[in-house]
Amino acid sequence: VAAVVLLTDFGTRDAYVGVMKGVILSRHPGLPVVDLGHDIDPHSILSGAYLLCAAWDYFPAGSAFCAVVDPGVGSSRGTLLAEQGGRYLIAPDNGLPSLLARMHPRLEVYTLDTAAVLSLHPPPEGVRLSHTFHGRDLFAPAAALCAAGQAGSIRGAALRPQLLPEAFVQHVGPAGRLLRGTVLHVDRFGNCVTSVHRSDLEPLQGLLLVEAGAVRLRGLSRTYAEVARGEPLALVGSFGFLEISLREDSAARALGLKTGDPVTVRSRQGDQPEY
Amino acid sequence: VAAVVLLTDFGTRDAYVGVMKGVILSRHPGLPVVDLGHDIDPHSILSGAYLLCAAWDYFPAGSAFCAVVDPGVGSSRGTLLAEQGGRYLIAPDNGLPSLLARMHPRLEVYTLDTAAVLSLHPPPEGVRLSHTFHGRDLFAPAAALCAAGQAGSIRGAALRPQLLPEAFVQHVGPAGRLLRGTVLHVDRFGNCVTSVHRSDLEPLQGLLLVEAGAVRLRGLSRTYAEVARGEPLALVGSFGFLEISLREDSAARALGLKTGDPVTVRSRQGDQPEY
Amino acid sequence: VAAVVLLTDFGTRDAYVGVMKGVILSRHPGLPVVDLGHDIDPHSILSGAYLLCAAWDYFPAGSAFCAVVDPGVGSSRGTLLAEQGGRYLIAPDNGLPSLLARMHPRLEVYTLDTAAVLSLHPPPEGVRLSHTFHGRDLFAPAAALCAAGQAGSIRGAALRPQLLPEAFVQHVGPAGRLLRGTVLHVDRFGNCVTSVHRSDLEPLQGLLLVEAGAVRLRGLSRTYAEVARGEPLALVGSFGFLEISLREDSAARALGLKTGDPVTVRSRQGDQPEY
Repeated sequence: VAAVVLLTDFGTRDAYVGVMKGVILSRHPGLPVVDLGHDIDPHSILSGAYLLCAAWDYFPAGSAFCAVVDPGVGSSRGTLLAEQGGRYLIAPDNGLPSLLARMHPRLEVYTLDTAAVLSLHPPPEGVRLSHTFHGRDLFAPAAALCAAGQAGSIRGAALRPQLLPEAFVQHVGPAGRLLRGTVLHVDRFGNCVTSVHRSDLEPLQGLLLVEAGAVRLRGLSRTYAEVARGEPLALVGSFGFLEISLREDSAARALGLKTGDPVTVRSRQGDQPEY
Repeated sequence: VAAVVLLTDFGTRDAYVGVMKGVILSRHPGLPVVDLGHDIDPHSILSGAYLLCAAWDYFPAGSAFCAVVDPGVGSSRGTLLAEQGGRYLIAPDNGLPSLLARMHPRLEVYTLDTAAVLSLHPPPEGVRLSHTFHGRDLFAPAAALCAAGQAGSIRGAALRPQLLPEAFVQHVGPAGRLLRGTVLHVDRFGNCVTSVHRSDLEPLQGLLLVEAGAVRLRGLSRTYAEVARGEPLALVGSFGFLEISLREDSAARALGLKTGDPVTVRSRQGDQPEY
Repeated sequence: VAAVVLLTDFGTRDAYVGVMKGVILSRHPGLPVVDLGHDIDPHSILSGAYLLCAAWDYFPAGSAFCAVVDPGVGSSRGTLLAEQGGRYLIAPDNGLPSLLARMHPRLEVYTLDTAAVLSLHPPPEGVRLSHTFHGRDLFAPAAALCAAGQAGSIRGAALRPQLLPEAFVQHVGPAGRLLRGTVLHVDRFGNCVTSVHRSDLEPLQGLLLVEAGAVRLRGLSRTYAEVARGEPLALVGSFGFLEISLREDSAARALGLKTGDPVTVRSRQGDQPEY
């Protein structure tokens, strides 16, 4: 059974998310709607890109992600429909699928045929289309149509989507001995998730040195319990990305790290020079 | 398919909302329960009145809204059951349906027959009725009964509900050239939603001047993208109400506005005097 | 119809909770998943223990609670499966079921057979088991299996669970005239819920004196409306535990109370000495 999965920066003080669910429920009774999250930092496309990529493989095939982090709503930014492994994404074309496109190179991306969406799923009688709430009027209906098996009716032309450079990793020096990445997301516990993936680290040999802000960590830990309370550590987190953490405290606060900050990983072997 | 729609100021630190869902699920398995919101400012009946009105038309006919913003729980305030367009509202009689009553003049309001609710939907064995949590013991069961088609069994006598004056607009001067309204709700982004509706503005002609706190705005914008980042604007928001916003920043913080603050709209035509 | 009920300290900024739902939905389409809460203070086992106990009786028989407040993830702490009244609990063995075990002495507790869980409910293809996110890889699958009627397949040996002393009450002096308890949880409104239950108070006679921090309250109130706005009161809350509150304000802030603080209740009869 497919689901609609909602990811927005709308928070939960307002009617925005509930109304998106009402719109879906009105047209598609029985379609499960799951909250991936609404409390990422407002307008943080980078956090949204990370959550989308982290969650993707854990939802059943046929599911449709509706991602609305959209500071440019009402401007001329486009809208997209993406597909991979039987799952769908509806989003503004502003970089939200960057990490997904990196980890799933076969991601297919199309323009969303907004006229088709509005024709198949018009707003309730007496309600006007909005210039400021495409999540309700366009994205939620489009995602519901995908989860209901009608993606083919709202798929436009193939599109080369906007991609955010911070979602990628730079390999520097011989044999990729130095990686430059970025803090993508700070989680509730203050763990700083970076763009460096396990697959970036596997070719590296010898001791790994991780640097971000003023902290320099030697080697990766496997669990928080390996260090004392309040001590920093680097580990590959539960979604496969390198994280900088403090045991039972906030690494972001204690180390002064935030989304967008640079991180580097070096491998040191024998007496070879460091990069 | 009808749904129960929950709107409270209970927040999400506590068991209150989850338990209301358990109560509904125990008696009405399969009935969809949707969160409209639980994170409005504690005891803010005005915010609750706005969210209720904003969301109303977007849920399927047969749905029952359960609204619990109830600083007077345990006092002698009454309880009500309201109906309009096939949708139901269960709430304390403290002004929560004010905006709904204004926008839907045919809203029918009745006393909730609490004895009938408790008889049809008694608390679990061994659990006592509470003096402080009517949401769990009374309102959630009543809303579930409405969504399950049994509103007729719990409808009491017709009632003239409490209404909040701030939910309405004052038309001043000849031909309604000056409107006085109120900030109803500040959303997550700091947008200040007012009680001035699109239908109040349509009769006005010429340039509109919007004033709230120290800000004076000339004319309405259609989208946030029409002004520079950090600049203020007035626009008719996605639910039809006038909002005062800042592009990609918080109008509430930058302009010092909050729920309950006055707002005025004037129309200026040619050399006519201003009011 | 049974449900999976999720209680974590994961907050809602992240993908953690959504992904647990995706995991459940992927294997058990149609199984209802309800949020009990994710916004308790991070690592607060005491708050989690309270919410679990408060909500327990309100969910349908067959439901499975998945409780993940787990500062020791990755250490050698065990995992447990508990049962009472046809309901199930999956949790780390770190004290989370303390209040439940106190209020339901017949709670049966077993080791969770993690190998059986992973065999019945392996992670998606290509995804590795995590050392840091047992909620996704182990607890959510185990709870889903319980709610789906398969608890018998993942039940290990009987276990004596870790219990937190703060979840209990000390009876001091003749005839239990003095009770010592603890603040278990501070709710959204700043109400301070204590470990003192209605059943502890019932044997006490005469005037009750409640002390916590610098506040001393004479007698119990039945509703908030019995005192003036901003005044403190003690009452038996809607889940049967003694609470210290302020009418329409935060007792925690105004009185400087927090989770873990001591509270005492004395009964004063005639001219008997106070303890």
